[in-house]
Amino acid sequence: MSSSEFDLIARHFARPGTGRSDVVLGIGDDAALLRPPPGMELVAAIDTLVAGVHFPLDTDAESIGHKALAVNLSDLAAMGAAPAWAMLALTLPQVDERWLADFSRGFFALARAHDVALVGGDTTRGPLTISVQVQGFVTPGEAFRRGGARPGDLIYVTGTLGDASLALLLASAPGVVPPEEFAWLRGRLDRPQPRVAEALRLRGWVRAAIDVSDGLLADLGHVLEASEVGATLALDRLPQSPAFRTCLEAMGDAHPILRRFTSGLAWADLALTAGDDYELCFTVDPANAARLNALAADGMVCTCIGVIDATPGLRCRLADGTSYGPQRRGYDHFAGGPA
Amino acid sequence: MSSSEFDLIARHFARPGTGRSDVVLGIGDDAALLRPPPGMELVAAIDTLVAGVHFPLDTDAESIGHKALAVNLSDLAAMGAAPAWAMLALTLPQVDERWLADFSRGFFALARAHDVALVGGDTTRGPLTISVQVQGFVTPGEAFRRGGARPGDLIYVTGTLGDASLALLLASAPGVVPPEEFAWLRGRLDRPQPRVAEALRLRGWVRAAIDVSDGLLADLGHVLEASEVGATLALDRLPQSPAFRTCLEAMGDAHPILRRFTSGLAWADLALTAGDDYELCFTVDPANAARLNALAADGMVCTCIGVIDATPGLRCRLADGTSYGPQRRGYDHFAGGPA
Repeated sequence: MSSSEFDLIARHFARPGTGRSDVVLGIGDDAALLRPPPGMELVAAIDTLVAGVHFPLDTDAESIGHKALAVNLSDLAAMGAAPAWAMLALTLPQVDERWLADFSRGFFALARAHDVALVGGDTTRGPLTISVQVQGFVTPGEAFRRGGARPGDLIYVTGTLGDASLALLLASAPGVVPPEEFAWLRGRLDRPQPRVAEALRLRGWVRAAIDVSDGLLADLGHVLEASEVGATLALDRLPQSPAFRTCLEAMGDAHPILRRFTSGLAWADLALTAGDDYELCFTVDPANAARLNALAADGMVCTCIGVIDATPGLRCRLADGTSYGPQRRGYDHFAGGPA
Repeated sequence: MSSSEFDLIARHFARPGTGRSDVVLGIGDDAALLRPPPGMELVAAIDTLVAGVHFPLDTDAESIGHKALAVNLSDLAAMGAAPAWAMLALTLPQVDERWLADFSRGFFALARAHDVALVGGDTTRGPLTISVQVQGFVTPGEAFRRGGARPGDLIYVTGTLGDASLALLLASAPGVVPPEEFAWLRGRLDRPQPRVAEALRLRGWVRAAIDVSDGLLADLGHVLEASEVGATLALDRLPQSPAFRTCLEAMGDAHPILRRFTSGLAWADLALTAGDDYELCFTVDPANAARLNALAADGMVCTCIGVIDATPGLRCRLADGTSYGPQRRGYDHFAGGPA
């Protein structure tokens, strides 16, 4: 049984010393034994990555390991939770020691960075599919929910938008833009940084939050629906990275690669409707704008991009006040991929 | 977005009124909010079913929904835990409303039977793969672990062994045995009954336990390894169902279908090395044998099949005292399937 699933798991995933005292029993039995902190609520999420659907087939295993955990930690961040435990269901077409070593390196590097213990899992043979389940903690009543936005709230987003999807579009023709810019964008696609630290700093005064995984319009749309409100976005405020701007300027809106995705303003459509950014979108009482500014001055990258309205619907305005609507609304696995 | 993943989830999985007061927020946000009972340990497991690997491709969707949850509840039972919450990561090749309706019916019927709330999930497009994560509760220190067996312990198993694997062998040629027997065996393969109630009745006096998913020898082997002990099994005591016996007698050991799997005693090899039974194998202090007998008299189907030894290794004896060893040791996803 030298290459059995049990040996595989032991060799690559059963790392002793998780550093968490709340793990009574980790990998190696029928189930894990965990000790939740008294008086806290558990926050639990599960997300799957499918090869060729959620990451390009040429993605390196270390990035896949990182991303499989990152997209789940992003869900915890969107709830304002402190991460604690992860479980990994890994389906692989064959035993590939090198791939497993790389995958686990990427997974554990991110886990260590966020003090997450891998407490259990399952390894099966089949088409490459990775499901990760994560759990964290919040003080009761303090979780960020989608339904808490109120008219007048300011809408913020962390980081920058559109980078990952531009990398995906450029992956088939990387020579189109300078290699440094492409590499940076590709890093945003392959190694999204879950906004856990940002979420923890925002605890106590976020009214509604979601992570931007399927595109800003789609994800903010969920907040509006759950909160029974509308919103107006100032498109000129959408945060764009220098690499994103440089590449789009070099290509021009009419570039065939961009035309696969958009027939309108490429920068706006990418920022509004393309997925995989894993930034946080959240709303706050306008009375707290000064506190946001203080956080931003202290190094937290977040931008006010609009305001919640009482009128249902989502309106986007360009700098000159004209309205703009992209033809696509966001990523939907069952209605066609992003590229 | 009429057939979007959001609508899919809402229609088939977001059932209001889970009946559990410990679910603060279920499906519909970035993560679930759960309230663990004070002072209890959480027991968490995750298991994946891959089409064509863990169930035959012709398996009906209702059975797949049942089995995806059942194999996970079996892990909780193997720890002595009372089930509470489940999360579902469902990867589907396409939207199939009928399939989803059938799958969710099978899933929720079993969930209701065990008071399990589906609290979250993810639906993605890809090859049919189902990962379910479940959690339950145990009193601290009372979980059944693999490492607790001691020399002299009696080894028990619930239910009967070998039924599911015989059904799998017969699936390609069901006319070989009487249809009623085949249907019963196929039910054991497609709709395993997790031994949750049995596990809860055994709480407090099980020394070591595991569920038989990969074959008795392989799974009991994990207990022996973790406990640093050995065992001797009395093969004539292995519990066989009437359908199992009837079919094997009708076929004879030399039947080509059986010869695909075994070159020895078919009944023993199926009971010892074939997977998918999802029975509990556990050990108890021999001083508790009378309590087991009382439970058995009260309707709990369990059989004493052997004894734990101080000598490492696993020995099997036939009724006449001769030793017997199957050539295969159990199911291993990366070393070849069971048939």
